[in-house]
Amino acid sequence: MTSIQMIEAAAERATGVVRRTPLLTSPFLDEISGRRIFVKAECLQHTGSFKFRGGWSALSGMDPEERKRGVIAFSSGNHAQGVAAAATRHGVPSVIIMPSDAPSLKIENTRALGAEVVLYDRVNEDRDEIGARLASERGLTLVKPFDNPFVIAGQGTTGLEIAAQAAEEGIETAQVLVPCGGGGLSSGIALALEARAPGMTVRPCEPQMFDDTIRSLRSGQIERNTVISGSICDAIVTPAPGNLTFPIMKRLCQPGVAVSDEDCLRAMALAFLRLKIVVEPGGAVALAAALFHHDKLPEGNLIVVTSGGNVDPEIFTGALRTAGG
Amino acid sequence: MTSIQMIEAAAERATGVVRRTPLLTSPFLDEISGRRIFVKAECLQHTGSFKFRGGWSALSGMDPEERKRGVIAFSSGNHAQGVAAAATRHGVPSVIIMPSDAPSLKIENTRALGAEVVLYDRVNEDRDEIGARLASERGLTLVKPFDNPFVIAGQGTTGLEIAAQAAEEGIETAQVLVPCGGGGLSSGIALALEARAPGMTVRPCEPQMFDDTIRSLRSGQIERNTVISGSICDAIVTPAPGNLTFPIMKRLCQPGVAVSDEDCLRAMALAFLRLKIVVEPGGAVALAAALFHHDKLPEGNLIVVTSGGNVDPEIFTGALRTAGG
Repeated sequence: MTSIQMIEAAAERATGVVRRTPLLTSPFLDEISGRRIFVKAECLQHTGSFKFRGGWSALSGMDPEERKRGVIAFSSGNHAQGVAAAATRHGVPSVIIMPSDAPSLKIENTRALGAEVVLYDRVNEDRDEIGARLASERGLTLVKPFDNPFVIAGQGTTGLEIAAQAAEEGIETAQVLVPCGGGGLSSGIALALEARAPGMTVRPCEPQMFDDTIRSLRSGQIERNTVISGSICDAIVTPAPGNLTFPIMKRLCQPGVAVSDEDCLRAMALAFLRLKIVVEPGGAVALAAALFHHDKLPEGNLIVVTSGGNVDPEIFTGALRTAGG
Repeated sequence: MTSIQMIEAAAERATGVVRRTPLLTSPFLDEISGRRIFVKAECLQHTGSFKFRGGWSALSGMDPEERKRGVIAFSSGNHAQGVAAAATRHGVPSVIIMPSDAPSLKIENTRALGAEVVLYDRVNEDRDEIGARLASERGLTLVKPFDNPFVIAGQGTTGLEIAAQAAEEGIETAQVLVPCGGGGLSSGIALALEARAPGMTVRPCEPQMFDDTIRSLRSGQIERNTVISGSICDAIVTPAPGNLTFPIMKRLCQPGVAVSDEDCLRAMALAFLRLKIVVEPGGAVALAAALFHHDKLPEGNLIVVTSGGNVDPEIFTGALRTAGG
């Protein structure tokens, strides 16, 4: 079970490696929402998303003998790059299992970060079987994307930084909006803020139709999405909150806001125009909630995590066009 | 004459106001150049460019009685926004003189930051006459964009941060590539590094055809551009290096590299893809030099300033397209 001590230990192991991302502001964004918005630009993290924190925490927290044999992960996206980069910087092998129809850019990037990419056919092959066989043959350790205490602790280092940076701004109370897939980032940040900034409330935000965590927080039990594809927010579409992350979120988080794809594209355009950062659709859900749905949130300061920036030029261009600049 | 003491004093006055922008890296950029590249992402500064540093330094360094009457500046771009925001945060008026054919977005932004924008007709009116009249009538103080010791000191705070951030990375020697218009940023950084990181060499970079500073550094005297428009790097096109900035650059800087518009667009696309930051064409000249002209530079680490991110969506989209992502 992840604790504040584990998060502090993860932060210690991350010193000089994980980037302390800036907390950005713009008077233009404050004006849209009628309150102060602080943006934790985690898209500027190594590998372009917060996932490097979790990957680094998992690798750096492993027994050195176990680590030496290498790690394995299932991912076609940000988790793949986070784990690959963390393994390479530790000088150990990583194997990433990806569907053969994953975008070639993502496959190339993951390879360039030092991973061995193993492709599987979504229709005819069972990725779990392939992964289990490789792990057993080579003695690889599986690094899950969110249901892993060390990964949650790594994502929680984002929360330590938010608490410190908000304190520098004189902010003690805020609604903290976090893009949520499996809940690793939301639960990690919530644990960190419970200890360091108890006046803040974490609210996981999600794409409409994929609001499993918001519904779960309302009902008090794990709810599942009925569909698992069809959002531009691919990076944060998961079937349900995790078995480790949900109990933490249930204890510490309040429901966030579900936003439309259109909201995300508009938020991406405003992040371009006003903050000069590149945010991917899934990484923009919390910013979209802050800008366009603040009326559904309690009054006061908003702190928003933009969790990733790995977006294809075509989609980004579309966001700029949709929003009319 | 700007000194390291003035830069340190400017940094002191800027504490808690000017943003300490991150020093970013990507293994993908290192691979292109075959050496380590560190990117000082000054596009993430308030108002989207380093100009806020100079504006803040000038305003915060003024006599309070003089400041109370307000300031005036000539600019259609980043200097306008930097001065307007600095004046507004000091609670004093600012007047910005802009050509009436300036992009409406820039006029609106400058107004939204709190300035009174006075438009003039480039063909039939004399902006200096208009400015002198307004300054005299209202007791406004002119804030020049680069030939002002306090402005140079403010831009120099970027150099203090570079020295500290490079030291955190264990870097003591580097070629420091800086986008150069009138030379305020280059000369300020050079003064800061002379004191704090003497193993580093500042090299002002410019657009081809507008390489007045590079030619001036080669000949040892101020050289002028023969043309004054026609580059997409509008923000850094000036007729010649400044009377205050050039002597500093002559003493401390080595010639940088002149790059093409096409180089800038490719560098912008790589900054999007690999660093997740938005860089404007003029702000990308130093990154373009590092990525595509490193063979013209001495060996070793490259530190690059991306000086601004105020770019229209259309131009940015064009950069992504030109570079093929």
